[in-house]
Order: sequence, then structure tokens, then C-alpha cells
Amino acid sequence: MTGRLEETVLRIRPPDEEIWRRTARLLDAKTKPPGSLGRLEDLTCRLASIRGEVPSSRLAPAIVVAAADHGVVDEGVSPYPQEVTGQMLANFASGGAAVSVLAKEAGARLVVVDAGVLSPTLADGVRSEIVDGVRGTGNIAVGPAMTVPVGVVLVERGIALAHDLADDGIGVVAVGDMGIGNTTVASALCAALLPADPAHTCGPGTGLDEAGVARKVDVVRRALVENDLPGRSIDPIAVLASVGGLEIAFLTGVILGAVSRRVPVLLDGFVTGAAALVASALSPHATGSLVAATRSPEPGHALVLQRLGLEPLLDIGLRLGEGSGAALALPLVRSAVAILTDMATFEAAGVSRG
Amino acid sequence: MTGRLEETVLRIRPPDEEIWRRTARLLDAKTKPPGSLGRLEDLTCRLASIRGEVPSSRLAPAIVVAAADHGVVDEGVSPYPQEVTGQMLANFASGGAAVSVLAKEAGARLVVVDAGVLSPTLADGVRSEIVDGVRGTGNIAVGPAMTVPVGVVLVERGIALAHDLADDGIGVVAVGDMGIGNTTVASALCAALLPADPAHTCGPGTGLDEAGVARKVDVVRRALVENDLPGRSIDPIAVLASVGGLEIAFLTGVILGAVSRRVPVLLDGFVTGAAALVASALSPHATGSLVAATRSPEPGHALVLQRLGLEPLLDIGLRLGEGSGAALALPLVRSAVAILTDMATFEAAGVSRG
Repeated sequence: MTGRLEETVLRIRPPDEEIWRRTARLLDAKTKPPGSLGRLEDLTCRLASIRGEVPSSRLAPAIVVAAADHGVVDEGVSPYPQEVTGQMLANFASGGAAVSVLAKEAGARLVVVDAGVLSPTLADGVRSEIVDGVRGTGNIAVGPAMTVPVGVVLVERGIALAHDLADDGIGVVAVGDMGIGNTTVASALCAALLPADPAHTCGPGTGLDEAGVARKVDVVRRALVENDLPGRSIDPIAVLASVGGLEIAFLTGVILGAVSRRVPVLLDGFVTGAAALVASALSPHATGSLVAATRSPEPGHALVLQRLGLEPLLDIGLRLGEGSGAALALPLVRSAVAILTDMATFEAAGVSRG
Repeated sequence: MTGRLEETVLRIRPPDEEIWRRTARLLDAKTKPPGSLGRLEDLTCRLASIRGEVPSSRLAPAIVVAAADHGVVDEGVSPYPQEVTGQMLANFASGGAAVSVLAKEAGARLVVVDAGVLSPTLADGVRSEIVDGVRGTGNIAVGPAMTVPVGVVLVERGIALAHDLADDGIGVVAVGDMGIGNTTVASALCAALLPADPAHTCGPGTGLDEAGVARKVDVVRRALVENDLPGRSIDPIAVLASVGGLEIAFLTGVILGAVSRRVPVLLDGFVTGAAALVASALSPHATGSLVAATRSPEPGHALVLQRLGLEPLLDIGLRLGEGSGAALALPLVRSAVAILTDMATFEAAGVSRG
């Protein structure tokens, strides 16, 4: 690990348990039976403990959606043509995609990042984070996705963006991904990092049939063999460079950067879960600052959630990615803070206790 | 049944299946893999089919929370003193309760109704729907809760409010309840209407221990025997008058009134579920226009949801009532419409299909 990455990882602390307890006591004084708002109250306490202080106002939300292309599409692992990645990047920026619409509904700032899409997008509102001209990864079934230096720089770019957002007053960062072929890459990362059998980490993604999923499993098996994983190295950065993706590297950095500044991270689905797995391998303390927005039907996601010890807020079959699930969970994050800041206490409202 | 109630029930139609299919086709043209937004897409189609038209803008939301007192608290079925009902009614109106805060977050109009609280509330913003001076029900363990005429008038008052809201442009109505002792009453209603063994419909409510729940089961058994249920009558209004509550009668009317005007109804937890059970018994067609916001840990709620064929949007252990769960689900309702009205199509965005 080099400078900024190492420095960031070293700065990450677990959530503050004393603040958790103090927040729980404050909630118990509010006009409701203790604990009757269920996991919303846990979320309030978790957000406060991550921030390291009892929040006195809403946490301003941002959604970072990063896109990149994947050489592994050569293996026929997606029903969509590769050009869709760049087309969707433009769609994010112009407001027509699901995450664009849902971010607006949630009152969240949307940051659209090109972390390595094959064809440059000319649309306004796309932040280019191309490193050394690298557009698209190598096919992981025949070799590494990227070099370690490129991976490290992308992670550091993500850290820098998260730090900028924190400096700008953002109080919660949601992450999203786009990249034709990236559930295959996420499946490979999970298989290598958990570790797990690829048969348990691969699913239909955006719409593979049974034969397609079998092909995906075979591709991931070959990727692990070709990249000598998980045997060769337990260095998470090396694993990320071998079988990861450029957007996943960037999002790993966003997660680490946010957490290092005590900004809670709202994960989306399977692919951002894979990025969180890398971040958590780099810094086990980071895990406590993650919140899972949704449960994806992708089988690998259940394994990721189990490893990270996360229970998602929503379980309504979302499998789009893009940060769309995280955007849908943002109102719960907002409300979790509102019950703390805006509800009356028994005393103030003159309500008798049980 | 008398005039307004009968007329309303006769006017209720099931959702429009053709509109459902048309909405599903419109969603499939949007820039996302078909069905990838999971149950959010089902919700979009359901809302459209209930409305009887493809929505062209957001559905303006209102939350109706009705409160009343219950004679059955004489049996020691709640850890809270009865005066809390009136105190909370004032708290709803003054903005300090959970539902007040969450309604504001959701941008919903909050309608606070006194359907029969023992002590009159002087707070501004409380709508009095007291019928014939009836404040509080009789103890169901020893006799009927209310007379049938009082029950009918309350249902009709609820219908009238819902019709006013529909006339006022409200496009979705969420319902909430408040009443110390009302999970006991809801358990009795469910036991009579499903029918089910009271041991399967009674739970801890706002915080009973095991002995308390056993006492509650005994109270409900006695209520059913004293009121000769479910044997004597299958008339839902008679059951409601025997073992129901004044707020439940009013909310039954709100549900029927909304549905009769093709306004979708967002149910909260167990008590509003019991009101929906009465509404559904009066008009089986009404069931298709209901949306379940949350899954309550109360055991009776699972039976209600199963009977109504509803799968809740949220499952995060909410057990407060007040409409707090419905308020938390309103952003999902809003987003379900937004993806239809605001997302780009593949064609418009120039994105290739798979």
C-alpha cells in the first residue's frame, strides 16, 4: 500500500459505542414504547455511532455511481452489449436512469463517475477518473484485470472524492455501480476473498438463463485459476487488481474515504457489496460504518452480507444496481435521524409513561 | 347496512387488469433490465391498476390517524395508562409524535381524528368525529364494544372523510391508529373474522410479558364467548360493533371510502390490518386496492396479511402503529410512480437493448 491509501486505512476507527448507548437513551425518552420503531431505531444509533456524535440535523446525502467496462464480456457473460455501459453513463448524467430519478426523489446529490468506460462520454456532468488512459479491464478469464498500480490509484481517487464530499458537508454517502459484465467480476472477487465456491457466488445478473449462469461459473473458475487465487496472495489490493473492476476499485476507495471521515456508507447491491468486501479486508474497522440498503437476489450477495454482518433495510427483489436500491433506502436514513431530532419526549409532550 | 355505507360498498370495483398490463409494458421500455426493480415495479403497476389509469404525476399522500379509547383496558391488557390515548392525540396534532415527524418527512398531509377518546382534546388540528357523545367503548370481555348504529355512523364518517380527501386531490391514503388497548380489540376482531384461535392472534402489543399475553388471550376468549362470536353472526358490522373499536370503525370507513374512489390505501400494521379485514369482509373487491406498508411482529398480523394476500414493503420490526410504518413506506410509493413518469426509455436515451 502506498501513501494516501495506507494513511486512510490507518485512520479508520470503529463506531463509537458510547454514542450508540447515548442515542438509544435519547430515543427511549421519545413518545413511543421503547424499541417500537424496530430496526429504524438501530439505524439511528448506528448512524450516530459512526458519526461519533449525536446528530442534531439531517445528514446530507450523496450517491456516487461509478461505471467501467470489463474485458470478461468476451466470454459471453451478459445479455447486454458492452456499449450499454457508456450509454447508461450518459443516461445517469442526463437524468433518465433509475438512479437519476430516485436520487432526485431522495434529495441526494448524484455524482456520476467514469472510472474506465471504453468509449469516452461527452455528456455534461460526468466526472472522469480515468487512470493512465486505462479504459476497460483485461479479460479475467485469461489474465489480470488491471495492474496493481492502476488499482491503487483508482482506490486513492475514490478516497479523494469521498474526502471532498465530507469537506463539502455530505453526511452519508451511498454507492452504486454500472458496468456490463460486472456481476461476473463481483462473483470472482467474492469467490477469492470469502473464499467461496464460484457456484455459490454466481447468479443470473441482469438476466442470464440457467446455461448462462453455468457458463459464468466456469468463467469465474478459470479466472481464479489463471490469476492463481485465492492461493497466491491474501493482499486485497492484489486480488482486486487480478479479478476486480475499475469501478469496483474506485468504489472501494469511496467507501474507505467516507468511513475514514466518519461518514456512513450506504451500500447498494451485490457489486457494491464486493467493493465493501475489499474495503473490509483492507480495514476490518471499516465494516461497522457500513449500512446495507437492499438484499439482492444474486446468491453471492447473501454471502457478502453474512460476512459483513449486515441486515439490509429493504428486501423487495431489487437487482438493478446503479445505486438505485441505496437511493430507495435513503428516506429511511433521513427518517432515522428525524425521529431523534424532531420527536417530542414524554416530558415535553406531557405524555404518561407505561 | 344503511344508505351511504351500502352505496359505497356497491360502488367498489377491483383494480383494472388492463391498466396493470399497460403499465408493465411502459416499465419494460425504461432503461433497465426488465423487472430489475423487483417489487417496486409491481407496486407501480398495482397503483396504476387501482387508480384505473396510468399516473402522469405523483399521487398526493394523506395519512389519516384515528384515535379512540377501549373499555377492555379494565382487564389490564396494556402497560400504559388509558390517559395516554388523549395525550398522544394532542401530540400528533402538535407535531411531536413519530407519525407527525414521519408524515412531514414524507410530504404527507396528516389528518388527526378523535373517533372517541375519553377526555376531549382541546389541541388545534384534531378533527372530532364523536358520534352521539360516545367516548370509549364498552369492555368487550363483558359485552359489546358499541351499538351497531354507532358503528355504522362511524364507518360512514370515515367514508365521508375519504371522499373529501379524494375530492381534494389526494391520490393515496395511508391509515394509522392510536388507542391504548387496541391490539387486544384487533386480536378479537381477527379471531372472529378469520376465524382463528385467540392464541394465534394475540401478541405483546406495546410491551406485555408472557403472562400479560396469556391474560390477553383469556380476555379475547371471554370477549368472543360473551359476544357469541363467531357463531352468532357473520355480518362484519355486527362483529365490528361487538368486539371492535371506535377508531377501527372509522378507519374501516376511510378504507372503503378511499377504495370506492379508486384511491389506493396504504395499511400500517396490525390494527389497521384488522380494519382492512372488516372492509374486505364488507367488500371483497376492496382487497385489491390495499397495499401493506409493514410487517408487524404481532402474530395476528401475519394471519391478516395472508388472508388479504398482501406482502408488506417493509419488514424492519415496526410495532408502533399511529401510521408510522405507512409513513415510512410512502417514499416507496412516490418512487414507484417516479420511475414510470420520469425515467427515460431505451429509445429516448439511445441505449441498446439486450
